Amino acid sequence: MTYRAPLADFHCLLTHVVDFAAVAATERFAEATPDTVGDILGGAARLSEEVLAPLQRVGDLHPARLEGGRVHTPPGFDAAWRAVADGGWLGLSARPESGGMGLPVTLAVCVQEMMAGACLSFQLGPLLTQGQIEALEHHADPALRALVLPRLVSGDWLGTMNLTEPQAGSDVGALRTRAEAVGDGTYRLTGQKIWISWGDNDFTANVSHLVLARLPDAPPGPRGISLFLVPRDHPDTGAPNGVQVVGLEEKMGLHGSPTATMAYDGAVGWMVGAPGGGLRAMFTMMNNARLGVGVQGIGQAEAALQLAGRHAADRVQGATGPGRSASILGHADVRRMLAVMRAEVFAARGIALATAVAIDRATATGCAAQTARAGWLTPIAKAFGTDTGVDVAGIAMQVQGGAAYVEATGAAQYLRDVRVTTIYEGTNGIQAMDLVGRKLADGGAAARAMLEALRSETLRSETGGTDALSTAQAAAVERLAHATEAMIATDADARGGGAAAFLRGWARVLGGHVHLRAARAEGGARAALARVYMQRCLPEAFSALAEAEAGEDDLFALDDAALSGVAGAPLAGAA
Amino acid sequence: MTYRAPLADFHCLLTHVVDFAAVAATERFAEATPDTVGDILGGAARLSEEVLAPLQRVGDLHPARLEGGRVHTPPGFDAAWRAVADGGWLGLSARPESGGMGLPVTLAVCVQEMMAGACLSFQLGPLLTQGQIEALEHHADPALRALVLPRLVSGDWLGTMNLTEPQAGSDVGALRTRAEAVGDGTYRLTGQKIWISWGDNDFTANVSHLVLARLPDAPPGPRGISLFLVPRDHPDTGAPNGVQVVGLEEKMGLHGSPTATMAYDGAVGWMVGAPGGGLRAMFTMMNNARLGVGVQGIGQAEAALQLAGRHAADRVQGATGPGRSASILGHADVRRMLAVMRAEVFAARGIALATAVAIDRATATGCAAQTARAGWLTPIAKAFGTDTGVDVAGIAMQVQGGAAYVEATGAAQYLRDVRVTTIYEGTNGIQAMDLVGRKLADGGAAARAMLEALRSETLRSETGGTDALSTAQAAAVERLAHATEAMIATDADARGGGAAAFLRGWARVLGGHVHLRAARAEGGARAALARVYMQRCLPEAFSALAEAEAGEDDLFALDDAALSGVAGAPLAGAA
Repeated sequence: MTYRAPLADFHCLLTHVVDFAAVAATERFAEATPDTVGDILGGAARLSEEVLAPLQRVGDLHPARLEGGRVHTPPGFDAAWRAVADGGWLGLSARPESGGMGLPVTLAVCVQEMMAGACLSFQLGPLLTQGQIEALEHHADPALRALVLPRLVSGDWLGTMNLTEPQAGSDVGALRTRAEAVGDGTYRLTGQKIWISWGDNDFTANVSHLVLARLPDAPPGPRGISLFLVPRDHPDTGAPNGVQVVGLEEKMGLHGSPTATMAYDGAVGWMVGAPGGGLRAMFTMMNNARLGVGVQGIGQAEAALQLAGRHAADRVQGATGPGRSASILGHADVRRMLAVMRAEVFAARGIALATAVAIDRATATGCAAQTARAGWLTPIAKAFGTDTGVDVAGIAMQVQGGAAYVEATGAAQYLRDVRVTTIYEGTNGIQAMDLVGRKLADGGAAARAMLEALRSETLRSETGGTDALSTAQAAAVERLAHATEAMIATDADARGGGAAAFLRGWARVLGGHVHLRAARAEGGARAALARVYMQRCLPEAFSALAEAEAGEDDLFALDDAALSGVAGAPLAGAA
Repeated sequence: MTYRAPLADFHCLLTHVVDFAAVAATERFAEATPDTVGDILGGAARLSEEVLAPLQRVGDLHPARLEGGRVHTPPGFDAAWRAVADGGWLGLSARPESGGMGLPVTLAVCVQEMMAGACLSFQLGPLLTQGQIEALEHHADPALRALVLPRLVSGDWLGTMNLTEPQAGSDVGALRTRAEAVGDGTYRLTGQKIWISWGDNDFTANVSHLVLARLPDAPPGPRGISLFLVPRDHPDTGAPNGVQVVGLEEKMGLHGSPTATMAYDGAVGWMVGAPGGGLRAMFTMMNNARLGVGVQGIGQAEAALQLAGRHAADRVQGATGPGRSASILGHADVRRMLAVMRAEVFAARGIALATAVAIDRATATGCAAQTARAGWLTPIAKAFGTDTGVDVAGIAMQVQGGAAYVEATGAAQYLRDVRVTTIYEGTNGIQAMDLVGRKLADGGAAARAMLEALRSETLRSETGGTDALSTAQAAAVERLAHATEAMIATDADARGGGAAAFLRGWARVLGGHVHLRAARAEGGARAALARVYMQRCLPEAFSALAEAEAGEDDLFALDDAALSGVAGAPLAGAA
């Protein structure tokens, strides 16, 4: 078995750390009883371990390919899609009126992590489809919802997001794809989109593209962008609809997932939401998609550390001390790597689930504070989850030594596959800018509320011998509060230079919160792992927050030529 | 042009930071005048930029392959080898009696960095050959030296190192390859070696393997290992010598470099050094090879940041502030990434050159203090140089966004290629164990001497407005001194848990020293970059050194099953 679902971690986090009981206590999510949660997570674990995990290497060795204008996916992906669709997993958190199960996003996030850990290149297809379901539920009119949602939930159609164009990446507002009204309520779309994940496949009856485009009279920039749904084939006739995959990228990893260049040539589409409301609609969807991508990083990190753990337990190299394992588990530096990987993944997983719980509580109760908390945590969950994915995949390689560099072991694939997660769905730099920009636009209310929650945990009366952990965490919380006030006091235009470090500092302290709560609730190995986190991971909060307060003067003191190396030898002027 | 040699950096570092003048002032290296240095570095820059850099993508797209028992190298590698050999670069630091130029290792290190930055998979061949030249100069008898050295220096032969066997990786002492004396002064070697870089090629007349093996009566473990030279073909007859490449690895990167499994079946060899002296001889060579691998990381980091810099200067995305570049150079977070990359590479380069200068001074004068300094700095230069390679290649990808994940841009290749450098020539974990083990076996004398040099720089009277830089560095030096005394006071068997963090803390403070000296000497952009380092990189010293002092109790409080995930669900006992 190459992947085992971390059910014990989910149980601990849901029960003791992220207060899932508050979600289950709402009327909206009353069905999320402990029995149901157990069934869902157990079922997803079996699916991930038995059906999806065997596809991880297959997807790498048999990349998706384009032949005759159609995408051919790796062997076994079709059957896996049917298993996911027939199990109802695509509609886990979709509304019952869409054909879904109406369960909390928190459970969907656990399921996404397991599927992503088992086979990332495949899981991106279900994740995109779930994102499209959510976008349509919020923004499509009833007729369009009735047409498309049942087909997405059943897995008859796969859903994609079409944002990027060559000149419009992070700056989505610069896109040029045109949409012209036909007069019968439909539109004709023309333009080119790039880097479209799962832009086509050979196992669903149709593909439903959500496409950002401009109406002829639209203003320039982000406010002129509208959102359209464009099926690959006409829903009624099945005839081709003027959308073509014209190329697939050759990527560093994620070979099983086709990354397409799409050509739209008068393709028929329906508007989703209002004219000029495209970015707003897309952002609703993207916020949760960002959490989903953070969770992809965590899933891959979990799988990578499991591979490294098995290697370490089997590999004998060099004499270890008396009473220690004869395998390399007996070497302190190897133990350090394994322990840090587990501590990091647990922290990232706790942050992701805390974000999901806030989303669910906001959905169930309309509580503005929970909405704000979800908004605050989302960029942190995305950036820290994916950074952890990359970091842990790298540490896992170090544990395995030279074997990790040989592709047949699968160790390198984790790094190659997960590497894109820090980039797509908004680079982690964009997440940091979101945190210090849009998410601080409330004057810091959401941040301060979160800080209070962190602080109150450190003030709880001590239980289970966690005094030292609490002391370490309390100092970090106060340091974080100081840096947060400093960031709030900084002019919004001058926050960029410290943004990434600020986000990192937040993630570090949130991770301490996760570990502290778990240690207090369960003691034992949880407390031991919390101690590893407090000693080896949490200290980074202080260096990161020092950088967060450094401002950006140092960055603009270097001139463009010296920084970029363009127009003159780098730093030559100094010689 | 895809790669530009960082000549201004070399000039600054050699002149103002690492005191190359002390090398040039010795009788041994009196020929290393400023004019000679300029000629050498300029020539290597042209060779790297014009001949080697165009091969970087070629090697990735046309991997070395095995056909009919022989290795075929990528197109153009043969001509590049001739250019390197004919330019005399293989013998740059070889002794004149070997046919070399007898120049300082410091210059060889600069040349290695440029070649590695231009094309890593190719440069590994020259690097290994230079390592073999050095090993033979120190340990081979006159007859063997006369036979082999001129051929290696001229590039007629390529040299390799054969250490690893499936059961003997980091634990070289576990190897099983046998060597039996024939009675005529030669030996017959039988066994299998794996992961042999450049195990064969199709452009040199012969290949000279340095092979670790055991004599029949040798004691078990490291003391029973001897070193042998085994040519692929008999030097006299040219007939095959019982050495076969039986497979090449499919690797994450470095595709241009053949990584071979070698089968020895009664191959004729000559002993190098004394019976049982194999590891000692190999370690002489490996110490400098470790510096060479650290420099590979730096070269790749330089190339990766140059690619990112060109991308950033060209790419327009999103509105930037007034008076700022319209390209993404105008965004503070992009500037942060570019500035940190440059600051990191400059620090790592300075540490590598300081190591090389200590080696040269020790060689020239026999000074024990310089030998000790070289020994202390070598594992730091290896680990920090290669960690910087991986980190910077990753940051460079973030700057380039989605384009970086598309192989055609070359951004991902830097990460794939450099990724092996933290693993081979002793993993970075092994480097850390070397630092707190063998290198502290002197009771801390070398470390304390280095600390004194760091401290005295911070006590120098201020020049050039570097007061704030000096203050930051002084605090870090004192923190480092504290952690170093704590490590010295720790039982040698209990240092492993803090070893990696200890090494990292040392690298961080050494990097501060490099930047402080450069800033004081040149001011301007050097001082601006030093400020970036002090604000954004140096603070990590404090978190790393806190971890270094954490000991290892936390690591052994977790049981093996919880750490490895083997035999029971991870941390399940806690639930």
